[in-house]
Amino acid sequence: MSDHSTVSTVDTVACVGAGVIGGGWVAHFLARGFRVRAWDPAPDAAAKLTRLVDAAWPALTELGLADGASKDNLTVTPTLAEAVEGAGFVQESAPEDLALKQKLLTDIDAVTPAGVVIASSTSGYGMSEMQISATTPERLAVGHPFNPPYLIPLVEVVGGTLTAPWAVEWAADFYRHVGKTVITMDREVPGFIANRLQEALWREALHMVANGEATVEQIDTAITDGPGLRWPAQGPCLTFHLAGGEGGMAHMLDHFGPSLKSPWTRLDAPELTPELRDAMVEGCLDEADGRSIADLVAERDRAIIAVQRAVRESRDG
Amino acid sequence: MSDHSTVSTVDTVACVGAGVIGGGWVAHFLARGFRVRAWDPAPDAAAKLTRLVDAAWPALTELGLADGASKDNLTVTPTLAEAVEGAGFVQESAPEDLALKQKLLTDIDAVTPAGVVIASSTSGYGMSEMQISATTPERLAVGHPFNPPYLIPLVEVVGGTLTAPWAVEWAADFYRHVGKTVITMDREVPGFIANRLQEALWREALHMVANGEATVEQIDTAITDGPGLRWPAQGPCLTFHLAGGEGGMAHMLDHFGPSLKSPWTRLDAPELTPELRDAMVEGCLDEADGRSIADLVAERDRAIIAVQRAVRESRDG
Repeated sequence: MSDHSTVSTVDTVACVGAGVIGGGWVAHFLARGFRVRAWDPAPDAAAKLTRLVDAAWPALTELGLADGASKDNLTVTPTLAEAVEGAGFVQESAPEDLALKQKLLTDIDAVTPAGVVIASSTSGYGMSEMQISATTPERLAVGHPFNPPYLIPLVEVVGGTLTAPWAVEWAADFYRHVGKTVITMDREVPGFIANRLQEALWREALHMVANGEATVEQIDTAITDGPGLRWPAQGPCLTFHLAGGEGGMAHMLDHFGPSLKSPWTRLDAPELTPELRDAMVEGCLDEADGRSIADLVAERDRAIIAVQRAVRESRDG
Repeated sequence: MSDHSTVSTVDTVACVGAGVIGGGWVAHFLARGFRVRAWDPAPDAAAKLTRLVDAAWPALTELGLADGASKDNLTVTPTLAEAVEGAGFVQESAPEDLALKQKLLTDIDAVTPAGVVIASSTSGYGMSEMQISATTPERLAVGHPFNPPYLIPLVEVVGGTLTAPWAVEWAADFYRHVGKTVITMDREVPGFIANRLQEALWREALHMVANGEATVEQIDTAITDGPGLRWPAQGPCLTFHLAGGEGGMAHMLDHFGPSLKSPWTRLDAPELTPELRDAMVEGCLDEADGRSIADLVAERDRAIIAVQRAVRESRDG
């Protein structure tokens, strides 16, 4: 263990990067009542961040600001070293460029006080690739958010080979402390979890457009008016648990298992071994946590109706 | 053109199949005020359908029933021939088994009055494969719904090589008439559109579980608390249009295009040719229909907040 503080004592966060994600993080931390110190090499960084925070603020106000939260708590600093001064946590959100991230994380590490965790918003690089030249790589972890970071709860946390377990744990705790849903991964997988799922769907969509099988609008409608209405309430596994009727995931895999051999996507499926089948079935039962299929159907139905109404009203509003 | 009726004169629908999808269609048509005649070879078909309709009815009542809608308008018939008597439309929802569907559609076709469109709920077979032994295959089309058919608006409509264009058009009109969102495809693609997208995501999920990279619960959380919150309001293309900041899809493809070469999923991406890039960019601009990135960001933010609230309240409720 190092001399890192407990998550609740952090009052200042440093954000590096003034793009959509960096600005989104700034807005999130400001709304949660933190002082935020931000830096980006772009000459118009302050104007960009102000614009991004202004755009996010109505939504954040609607959600409810923490005590003392204010846009005035943002300081855009002229140097990286000044940004990390007094910060209890650093979030890096630079462009997706490996060499750039390696150098930037090394620079951040060099000026950030010992024991302070530095997290990268990278969408897909492993920390093992990025931390190679840092002096104290043990406090570097991935904290991958989703756009916009001030509204989407998910953050995926994973360390690199040189990351200390305490840093991964600390980052996960801190994100939970600031209202995030955290998935902690025990190994580095390119794209982590959510982006792999999203990327598979996205690549299939690109193939369909490239082949003239569907238009951009048909793809979006297929999701917004189709499976997309189920996913905010029940993920893909629980969704298919219900597609099996009273038999749940077990029946679904036995009935639709053969479709895994069908050319329904350009992605080949894994072999549906007894082990995989059981893992899917047991995972769904764990997640259902005692709720019967009928309970889950009723929950799903209420959620779909509420989601459709919410989207409609948010459009009219 | 045949002697088929206009969609608004239909007052009776025949539903074949008493599984989750068949029962869901029965509930949908009953709620929209139709008389429904249903048949399934299972001896307990009537009990199964009653159970499914009862489970769906609270949601349908909450959504608002059509004038004259009643669960009493369901007649479960002892034979297929009696089910299609007087029906202005037939929806087939048998198990996914090609030989079974071929035979069943041939049987339905043989007893259904001329000019009445017969649609199959198949999740992935092409009508060309299924209609081969029908006497009047020109009125057979695919009308693929999503579970539950009484709540998810999407229906994908596509004909087979022997389907007449009027039948595809009639089915699309009829589904729109009963409140559905229709995507009409001009060619048969295995899995249609939404299932291809969903299946790519699902297969990636199975690979991750099979390899111990993620648990069932992590996969579901990654979607429900991540990209799934965006998809009911903005599909995957429009979502990435916003991920590019002010530069939209064009900037996004130029910035994240290289990630298509990354091993972020087991699915290889297509070549990002200038033609594909332009198709994606133009498709997004068409779909945005004059709304600026700032407009779309504001819409997305309102929608995400409303969706999260809706899901939370529907769980507490």
